Amino acid sequence: MSMFAREFGIVCGTLPTGADNAITDVPGALVGHHTIRDGEINTGVTAILPHGGNLYRSKVLAASEVFNGFGKSTGLVQVDELGTLETPILLTNTFGVGACANALIRAAIAANPDIGRETATVNPVVCECNDGALSDIQAMAVGEEHARMALAAASAEVAEGNVGAGTGMSCFGFKGGIGTASRRLTLDGGTFHLGVLVLSNFGRAGDLVLPDGRRPHPKATAAAEKGSVIAVLATDIPMEHRQLRRVTRRCGAGLARLGAYWGHGSGDIAIGFSTGVRFDHDEPNDFVTMKVLNENRIDSVFRAATEATQEAVLNSMCAAEAMRGRDRRLRPSLADWLRANG
Amino acid sequence: MSMFAREFGIVCGTLPTGADNAITDVPGALVGHHTIRDGEINTGVTAILPHGGNLYRSKVLAASEVFNGFGKSTGLVQVDELGTLETPILLTNTFGVGACANALIRAAIAANPDIGRETATVNPVVCECNDGALSDIQAMAVGEEHARMALAAASAEVAEGNVGAGTGMSCFGFKGGIGTASRRLTLDGGTFHLGVLVLSNFGRAGDLVLPDGRRPHPKATAAAEKGSVIAVLATDIPMEHRQLRRVTRRCGAGLARLGAYWGHGSGDIAIGFSTGVRFDHDEPNDFVTMKVLNENRIDSVFRAATEATQEAVLNSMCAAEAMRGRDRRLRPSLADWLRANG
Amino acid sequence: MSMFAREFGIVCGTLPTGADNAITDVPGALVGHHTIRDGEINTGVTAILPHGGNLYRSKVLAASEVFNGFGKSTGLVQVDELGTLETPILLTNTFGVGACANALIRAAIAANPDIGRETATVNPVVCECNDGALSDIQAMAVGEEHARMALAAASAEVAEGNVGAGTGMSCFGFKGGIGTASRRLTLDGGTFHLGVLVLSNFGRAGDLVLPDGRRPHPKATAAAEKGSVIAVLATDIPMEHRQLRRVTRRCGAGLARLGAYWGHGSGDIAIGFSTGVRFDHDEPNDFVTMKVLNENRIDSVFRAATEATQEAVLNSMCAAEAMRGRDRRLRPSLADWLRANG
Amino acid sequence: MSMFAREFGIVCGTLPTGADNAITDVPGALVGHHTIRDGEINTGVTAILPHGGNLYRSKVLAASEVFNGFGKSTGLVQVDELGTLETPILLTNTFGVGACANALIRAAIAANPDIGRETATVNPVVCECNDGALSDIQAMAVGEEHARMALAAASAEVAEGNVGAGTGMSCFGFKGGIGTASRRLTLDGGTFHLGVLVLSNFGRAGDLVLPDGRRPHPKATAAAEKGSVIAVLATDIPMEHRQLRRVTRRCGAGLARLGAYWGHGSGDIAIGFSTGVRFDHDEPNDFVTMKVLNENRIDSVFRAATEATQEAVLNSMCAAEAMRGRDRRLRPSLADWLRANG
Repeated sequence: MSMFAREFGIVCGTLPTGADNAITDVPGALVGHHTIRDGEINTGVTAILPHGGNLYRSKVLAASEVFNGFGKSTGLVQVDELGTLETPILLTNTFGVGACANALIRAAIAANPDIGRETATVNPVVCECNDGALSDIQAMAVGEEHARMALAAASAEVAEGNVGAGTGMSCFGFKGGIGTASRRLTLDGGTFHLGVLVLSNFGRAGDLVLPDGRRPHPKATAAAEKGSVIAVLATDIPMEHRQLRRVTRRCGAGLARLGAYWGHGSGDIAIGFSTGVRFDHDEPNDFVTMKVLNENRIDSVFRAATEATQEAVLNSMCAAEAMRGRDRRLRPSLADWLRANG
Repeated sequence: MSMFAREFGIVCGTLPTGADNAITDVPGALVGHHTIRDGEINTGVTAILPHGGNLYRSKVLAASEVFNGFGKSTGLVQVDELGTLETPILLTNTFGVGACANALIRAAIAANPDIGRETATVNPVVCECNDGALSDIQAMAVGEEHARMALAAASAEVAEGNVGAGTGMSCFGFKGGIGTASRRLTLDGGTFHLGVLVLSNFGRAGDLVLPDGRRPHPKATAAAEKGSVIAVLATDIPMEHRQLRRVTRRCGAGLARLGAYWGHGSGDIAIGFSTGVRFDHDEPNDFVTMKVLNENRIDSVFRAATEATQEAVLNSMCAAEAMRGRDRRLRPSLADWLRANG
Repeated sequence: MSMFAREFGIVCGTLPTGADNAITDVPGALVGHHTIRDGEINTGVTAILPHGGNLYRSKVLAASEVFNGFGKSTGLVQVDELGTLETPILLTNTFGVGACANALIRAAIAANPDIGRETATVNPVVCECNDGALSDIQAMAVGEEHARMALAAASAEVAEGNVGAGTGMSCFGFKGGIGTASRRLTLDGGTFHLGVLVLSNFGRAGDLVLPDGRRPHPKATAAAEKGSVIAVLATDIPMEHRQLRRVTRRCGAGLARLGAYWGHGSGDIAIGFSTGVRFDHDEPNDFVTMKVLNENRIDSVFRAATEATQEAVLNSMCAAEAMRGRDRRLRPSLADWLRANG
Repeated sequence: MSMFAREFGIVCGTLPTGADNAITDVPGALVGHHTIRDGEINTGVTAILPHGGNLYRSKVLAASEVFNGFGKSTGLVQVDELGTLETPILLTNTFGVGACANALIRAAIAANPDIGRETATVNPVVCECNDGALSDIQAMAVGEEHARMALAAASAEVAEGNVGAGTGMSCFGFKGGIGTASRRLTLDGGTFHLGVLVLSNFGRAGDLVLPDGRRPHPKATAAAEKGSVIAVLATDIPMEHRQLRRVTRRCGAGLARLGAYWGHGSGDIAIGFSTGVRFDHDEPNDFVTMKVLNENRIDSVFRAATEATQEAVLNSMCAAEAMRGRDRRLRPSLADWLRANG
């Protein structure tokens, strides 16, 4: 169970967590990382899979929200036009998007040889943050093989901190990276989950606010908010696209609670999916039946999205160890600060 | 059956019409008008009801699209956030929106005394065009009583031309007004309809193109495209909000086929609803089941929306008789032009 | 100077305030209220004027953002299509929108007799919250005369708390209402201001977080987040529409910092204007020259918008006295809580 | 001068063309192609450069509009957040986006070695259509070197038809590809241009309508509208982002005039830029001065965008020769149809 923030007594909100306090509490969801550390290079790829099957054939409901669009993600236009996700989501550094997109295309073709021939093409979804402060991003070190390895590593266990795409990220002047958290909800007597995984690389040193009002300052020079944050939200609650987009928007509230204001130089983007709604690529009927949420019950899902995002960022920071990157730049660890200021 | 354009041999597209070639081919949909003609005043109110029951208690799916936002409609923000319509849609002149909105609120309270007390408030939807060229709009002649009379007049018969909100409207230099058209579709073996009603008040003299390429010119001075057009799209095809919004967007293609380019001074807005999806205001369960369209079947619905919008505008113009309005300004009739140039 | 929250030691963020810590620190901006208290009726109208001149002839730059669209505001479609505000902004209760819009139309016609005749129509902008918990909203008590009185009362002094549109509002289980705050910025050696005025009526009891981490609880039953919040943002910083929209979006971060997540039943809307950019309705030239912000300097403006929104809400709550409204329902005062828990 | 459609007497609208009836009538704009034809592969890359200088250092104003988002373009999120274009625009097939984006990144770094180190990263803009009907798209034949060659080939002469990204495209059942057209405007006594270049790959056989009402039918089986169309709009008219976005939206009206309804399976996207507004990446001042269009003069620019888009598509079809592609599939030439049906 992800306890990186909670072991310091930091709790976000009031809803109960899932069993692992992780995005993988959503049944079927998988996460894989591939980390690249080589000299001045500290980067990688993280893969999030809604399910382990053929996602192109059995798409899931998806939606995205852009809080600040200083970002180079690919695939979001189609996600919101069609409301579906048909590849895993890959996270990487800003200049690794092309390689990751190509890897997703090749993997989809390998599993579905009719793509681009007898059937439509495929929409790869890749999101990114700029890890240039700690990694030599000009090297364009991420290749298709690294994306493939992240996909192949997918499992129900989520490593956090300086791993995968999170390897070289910074957050509020501290070391950022990968973090996750989840919330558990009961609806019509059944148990459902909402989990968030973040790639945290945003926030100006000095702006972070903990839930108890403390303001950890890394003693770093306050630089402009640059770098971006990606929140991937997963749930098994069935709903329609408009509802999921509303839910996904609440990731932005979670970021703001941490002291961020979706800074100019930051690509602050959330993408959500629900495994509770599947679309058969080869659906033979003109109509399909969906179960969707009663809109009057959506507030608890909003609350879950906000709390899980806030906690996932704090987990990413508490899990990440201090690191020296490119040009020997140091990013201290929030966990160290909390131990020293406990 | 609405034959105003077809009796001149004008046909838009290839899909079959509904029985009446009218928005009321969608089962349950009703239209009512109240016309105000008094000296320099040529205006009115048109009401479109998705069904004749308590719409607040049994809401229908709704979505809107703004092609050009030089317009003063009210209620669209909530329509697209929640995906529902809970009052009839009223059409009127630009300065009649407030009175119409108040009439809708009072009617909703009368039918649902818990509004604003034990339950939520109500979102009135009113759209408008500027009939100031032919009517003394400063008189603010539309009152709540006129809106009530339009609502009370609702029936499955749709009067077209210089009637209701269409009384003082102009279109491509000719007389505009109210027009309607519909298309019939077969899905999973069942029969469905998509109908459009327009309030036409847009287009510069000389820009109109008929489906056969002819360009009727009213010999009026070419003035800037001002005035707006509202398209109300109704269907009984079940779908989700995102799908309906995609369908509603195609009304803009229908307008463009007529030679319009969504001019700067024109509020070009479409609002769509589907009676095939109902939302119970007092829904007790956390989940509901909906039937939605297989996305791969949506092209025929797009085609229907485009064709019906194009034909509804031509019907509005062919149904409208020539008229002298404020300051004795003349708007000739497209029907007269077609007879003279047949 | 607005010190309602600061006298309890509550400070939001780090930027300096304007002289009055009020929206009226923006030169030219004026605010007027009209309060209606009569038996079960506790409501009113608040007017915000970008300048005291003829706003239709000398429009200001404007933009809006909808965080959650469960709201019935009017005029926003045109604001974002054209990027201009041509009437004062009126705030009122949900069912007062029609009367306020009509009052704005009549005032614009009185000052500009060519409206709807020789020139275009006018776009009234009215935003609302639902004060039905403390006021008999079914009475539709707001009339055009109340809007006129709020406009006539406009001055550079801003009354806060239970006044104007804020009279019957609730916030996080406490009494809400009108609040304001401002921030001062230096750009290219000149002094500029950004001010926010809120109509606060949102937030579930128990969710409020103060900047120091304290969580004031009104001991009320936790009800769903309903009711809405409107933030009006004013600045004299010249910029283009896209920039102003980005700035206005940051009001949403200010709300989230307070513990809100833009609840389902809440119309959470911000509208911003800049007096630093004027548009002449009768502009004779094809091109005009504008001064706009260097985009790389926008982060301090984002910060100002976030801080001022957060503080304006806390000022509204600290200024508002405890009140018993409709059905003798009580809303305690946050100021009283702070005194008791100081 | 591009006369491909005009030599058949086909004229779209009423405005005069620029000297070459091409996007390169906009001073500074350049276009380059690289064509790949090899066995079953018929594809390529087309580059559009707003100017021949360092675009990262001297960005131009840009905006985009998505009419139907079944498309895999990259870079649009940042274009509309920041309103700038900082790389050339590359067009290619759906699976060539990653390679083209990487080529743009490497070219930007080569010219600006501070990218990702001392300054921000760079946002590559690549748009695509699916040429899978005539080309073996699974081969992923487009490499970075092809993008580099298209960029290096940039000149003020625009080849049209089966060239560059247009090599394997289809349109209304005929052969599609690259086409261009322009319009000339006079504003404040100066001469300005608006040009459009399209990559045409949309429209169902039988749906095409010529400006004179004729409906060329390729005798092909009517298949679903798939494949996409990209319109790149260039102008030297100075304006602000909101205005350019409004102008860019009118490309959609031009497409609809041809008989399209922005079909479900089509990524119908327009991206516009204005060389009349430059942004210095290293701008030292807090404010800059811009010349922008008087909004009341924008209708002629809307008209130009609509007409030039419509004509650019017809030019692409008239310039493209009949072609046999993958699996010996034939796409006839519209020019041949026009000669036979003249």
